[in-house]
Amino acid sequence: MIRINEHYLKLQSSYLFAEIAQRVRRFQEENPETEVIKLGIGDVTRALPEACVRAMHNAVDELGREETFRGYGPEQGYAFLREAIAREDFQKRGADISEEEVFVSDGAKCDTANFQELLGPDAYVALPDPVYPVYLDSNVMAGRTGALQGDRFQGVRHLESTRENGFIPDPPGDPVDVIYLCFPNNPTGAAIGHEDLKKWVDYARENRALILYDAAYEAFIRDDSLPRSIYEVPGAKEVAVEFRSFSKTAGFTGARCAYTVVPKECTGYTSQGEAVSLHGLWLRRQSTKFNGASYPMQRAAEAVYSREGAEQVRELIDFYLANASIVLSQMRSLGLTCSGGENSPYIWVHAGRDSKEMFELLLSRAGVVCTPGIGFGSCGREYIRISAFNSRRNIETAMERIGKVL
Amino acid sequence: MIRINEHYLKLQSSYLFAEIAQRVRRFQEENPETEVIKLGIGDVTRALPEACVRAMHNAVDELGREETFRGYGPEQGYAFLREAIAREDFQKRGADISEEEVFVSDGAKCDTANFQELLGPDAYVALPDPVYPVYLDSNVMAGRTGALQGDRFQGVRHLESTRENGFIPDPPGDPVDVIYLCFPNNPTGAAIGHEDLKKWVDYARENRALILYDAAYEAFIRDDSLPRSIYEVPGAKEVAVEFRSFSKTAGFTGARCAYTVVPKECTGYTSQGEAVSLHGLWLRRQSTKFNGASYPMQRAAEAVYSREGAEQVRELIDFYLANASIVLSQMRSLGLTCSGGENSPYIWVHAGRDSKEMFELLLSRAGVVCTPGIGFGSCGREYIRISAFNSRRNIETAMERIGKVL
Repeated sequence: MIRINEHYLKLQSSYLFAEIAQRVRRFQEENPETEVIKLGIGDVTRALPEACVRAMHNAVDELGREETFRGYGPEQGYAFLREAIAREDFQKRGADISEEEVFVSDGAKCDTANFQELLGPDAYVALPDPVYPVYLDSNVMAGRTGALQGDRFQGVRHLESTRENGFIPDPPGDPVDVIYLCFPNNPTGAAIGHEDLKKWVDYARENRALILYDAAYEAFIRDDSLPRSIYEVPGAKEVAVEFRSFSKTAGFTGARCAYTVVPKECTGYTSQGEAVSLHGLWLRRQSTKFNGASYPMQRAAEAVYSREGAEQVRELIDFYLANASIVLSQMRSLGLTCSGGENSPYIWVHAGRDSKEMFELLLSRAGVVCTPGIGFGSCGREYIRISAFNSRRNIETAMERIGKVL
Repeated sequence: MIRINEHYLKLQSSYLFAEIAQRVRRFQEENPETEVIKLGIGDVTRALPEACVRAMHNAVDELGREETFRGYGPEQGYAFLREAIAREDFQKRGADISEEEVFVSDGAKCDTANFQELLGPDAYVALPDPVYPVYLDSNVMAGRTGALQGDRFQGVRHLESTRENGFIPDPPGDPVDVIYLCFPNNPTGAAIGHEDLKKWVDYARENRALILYDAAYEAFIRDDSLPRSIYEVPGAKEVAVEFRSFSKTAGFTGARCAYTVVPKECTGYTSQGEAVSLHGLWLRRQSTKFNGASYPMQRAAEAVYSREGAEQVRELIDFYLANASIVLSQMRSLGLTCSGGENSPYIWVHAGRDSKEMFELLLSRAGVVCTPGIGFGSCGREYIRISAFNSRRNIETAMERIGKVL
């Protein structure tokens, strides 16, 4: 008889974003005259940069001609892209990452969810609260947590990110095995500085812990004093894996391309205490379970690093950051305390009331969709997340409507 | 301290195809004057069908304009593609599969490797021998096997596919929990008939087992009496998941698009014996760990079902089948017994000697790369796999060279 993986049953049957989508659909059906503005899910809205579009067309043409056709590519990604990434995103910023340490994939969601497969079943996991649900759910599915008790899973260490600590938790006083960090943060928008990040790297080195560092929003950093990669901190290569994506950087949410850096020095241990390179394990995982990202998408990602592409990407990010700035000043002028909105496309707003109530209020009275903070964890109970990914007109209209309601 | 998943250490450090690639590279360096012909890895060589190329270009243009831009798509794939698949690949052949049961992905390798995540850690796994290594390796990584002993992992049931049973094993006499089947088979090229497939469906129903049915080479079936889908067998929906791919069908190995069918009736059980729908679990897995296949690739896959696309795909497959036929007759004329080569792009040749020796002989004497059967399991010890994916000229030259050597 085929038994299922019963850890799946620990998860609530629906996913926050699916619940919201359903509620919004019902609202729209009941209010067909209202133009609902969606500032909920963090999905980009502007067209792909021209340089990327051109690169995709060229690559598609290559696939359409026998002389230039390409079949399976390397599971780790093509050298042309891995080289560009290592050079432009790391070496030029003083982080000593080689192309061999870069693994191209079809999405950071997959990579952050899959990486835990390399870890022991009993690894003690530390997660921020609030948190991007994928980190938690993938560990629940793998059996690294106990049951849900109240609104938290047992057996996981929650790193509370609150107004009091500026949404940047300190390392715990006792040892954990694996730590998920995300900066600029989803959902709080908080960006971490060198000193705070160094505390985490030092902690991981002292405890032989592993940091899974999600830098999917790195491109939104405009403050040059902030680190863009964890590898800007000395010693991080031994203890950290970094996830990046072209989704929010260059509008690839529908195109699909991302990458993960696993330095060769980055180490895990057997139960006998023997050191094992995580680079080798991830290479094995990807060669066995993945067949490479789509070739035209890898060419489009390469174009992000051309002079033209880099300029277009910068303009794209500037646009969303200007949106974020509009949201931030409106929220502040309404007397609400916020995090993010600078160096981040997200504004984390202290609603001063239950987050689902606030979500419902903004939807029903202003026709604006936000994300209730509770979906990201207990610490989000009184917050909402507003996303700056939308047209200027929609952002302005939404802020005007919210101004009238609050 | 971060512990690794030690099951990874049970795997030999390298993957068959990587080993071969290395040996071929060395041979080429040492023999720069020989034009090596690669009939090893099963990768397509002809250009994408024009209908697919056009659909990709159109979709790329959509992503390049703000009015038509699309961000995240549904994790399960777009309705336009799921509908086309359900209608053309199943309903038109009398298999009652609905679009909601179709999950689009970026590759059948990922899907066949990931699906085991839904199953209990103690599931007793039955695998053909020889076998596509991904089924085995993903289960080794998940800890469903014992250690490697000789050339087999302990704790797995091997379904021997030999000349004696026409490379189509019968169900075992005792119960297993999950069964991997692949027809037309990789590597043996054997295609299964209705009666033999029905035996497996009946066995799975009797034992409440699950069949993971890999039909990635379905498009190569030209014998109309053969089932193209396991769902053509009554009752299969309760016990079978089917994997399909556009890779070999329409040349998408570099483009990346595939799909998996998980019928709503398909059932697993908790340790308490409660029935749980695997459809719901896979939906949860994909929503949590996957972000949908690339939009232009989904549009290109849709074009496979247009009249023009279907004609072009048929022409493509006819071409490779004609190659296969050339290989098959040459091997037979050399007195070698073969399986496959009809309804399949693979020819499984009984070498009458050690498979690695035969590989080495063909490489060093004929400059032709094949795959040694031992890489697929013990039963491949005296076989080689020849792939028909190449140009006509290369196939003919390779057969000529082999004719001189053997």
